[in-house]
Amino acid sequence: MPGEKTQDLGGGFRIIQNPEYFPFGTDAVLLADFAKMKRGERAADLGTGCGIIPILMCARTKGIHVTGVEIQEPLADMAKRSVLLNGLGESITIIHGDFREPGTAAPGFDAVVSNPPYEKKNSGMRSENESRNVAKREEMCTLEDVLAAASRLLRAGGRLYMIYRTERFAELMEKMRRSGLEPKRVMLVSQRTGEAPNFALVEGRKGAKEGVKFLPPLAVYEKDASYTPQAKKIYRI
Amino acid sequence: MPGEKTQDLGGGFRIIQNPEYFPFGTDAVLLADFAKMKRGERAADLGTGCGIIPILMCARTKGIHVTGVEIQEPLADMAKRSVLLNGLGESITIIHGDFREPGTAAPGFDAVVSNPPYEKKNSGMRSENESRNVAKREEMCTLEDVLAAASRLLRAGGRLYMIYRTERFAELMEKMRRSGLEPKRVMLVSQRTGEAPNFALVEGRKGAKEGVKFLPPLAVYEKDASYTPQAKKIYRI
Repeated sequence: MPGEKTQDLGGGFRIIQNPEYFPFGTDAVLLADFAKMKRGERAADLGTGCGIIPILMCARTKGIHVTGVEIQEPLADMAKRSVLLNGLGESITIIHGDFREPGTAAPGFDAVVSNPPYEKKNSGMRSENESRNVAKREEMCTLEDVLAAASRLLRAGGRLYMIYRTERFAELMEKMRRSGLEPKRVMLVSQRTGEAPNFALVEGRKGAKEGVKFLPPLAVYEKDASYTPQAKKIYRI
Repeated sequence: MPGEKTQDLGGGFRIIQNPEYFPFGTDAVLLADFAKMKRGERAADLGTGCGIIPILMCARTKGIHVTGVEIQEPLADMAKRSVLLNGLGESITIIHGDFREPGTAAPGFDAVVSNPPYEKKNSGMRSENESRNVAKREEMCTLEDVLAAASRLLRAGGRLYMIYRTERFAELMEKMRRSGLEPKRVMLVSQRTGEAPNFALVEGRKGAKEGVKFLPPLAVYEKDASYTPQAKKIYRI
């Protein structure tokens, strides 16, 4: 498609990007690393966009399968072509569809991953680019939609991996518990070492008993603006 | 009383301690510093124990009034004597009573502070010392009891300040929201710089709209086991 470019992801992996659509960000890279998988497991990525999370997950762990669901057809199409570009056709399935509808994917996943819109529908400024609005704002799906779909798609004991703004963290904790997805692990992420965290990586487990473990916080940059050792490891720099 | 000792708190303030009862810890000192008050405001401390939090709060901010409620009579008595020892009889009232009972204190407080028991009733080992069990375990009051009392005692817009184990953080967020005490500020506390946080300082506001701000995390010790600059400031070392 016009305007498309191929971006290098390291380790021989690549992804198609198009400036018409919302680009993947640090949050997607952090989430793909946080979502620890074991060989033989199956995951679903709700709102996969350009397919960055399934590709990075398959680059990190061999022998897994990831189903990416995307409602925007041009993005789902771009994701499918990125999968083929990386020779991952047997490891990744991209579905163009609405994950809120029960028929879109069959339940029983070991893990569900989602980097959902962070902004409420009536907050902030709408973009002129409708695709960006869908990716960033709760126009097509709310937090409750993501949690309801995750709860439906996971097997008992299955894990939900999400990244979310700390500003909505209290709401996230409450709504995960109400959806039967007990928060079990949290890693807070700040831009720089020692700064206030602005993102939270969260692992919930379906039907687990209560009790959450906070991991040491992650900072992306040192105070001198170089990458921290943890960020280098995640980015494989 | 036999076994009592007077401990220096710095700045000319002192407190009576007795090895028969649960001693105050770092958590109480952190909470008294986190609970920011303005001159003329009134606070209640639910489960005040030896009275450490009211005394430290009055040491930090002049012209406030703090009501400490304690169910264990010998501790309430010790707290009353510590108040007199510091000449704080006009700034602090200690009530021997059960804060779960509506008649114990009149509503309308600007702030409620609480360093409640962290452990569930049926978890961990019971101590042979009953007073320690009451301080550490949900034997006399649960998290819900503390939140219900705080909600009843606060004026509209009044603040709840609590310290709690991160292990129960998801539950705390959910239950604060259900009690109409919206989480607004969180500061996570780790033993050492860069380690996983084990305590959370939380500010909730009665009837506020949702949205929580995470502050930069606080570490008590540096990696070389010396106090961090923030801890020195809190401890006034």
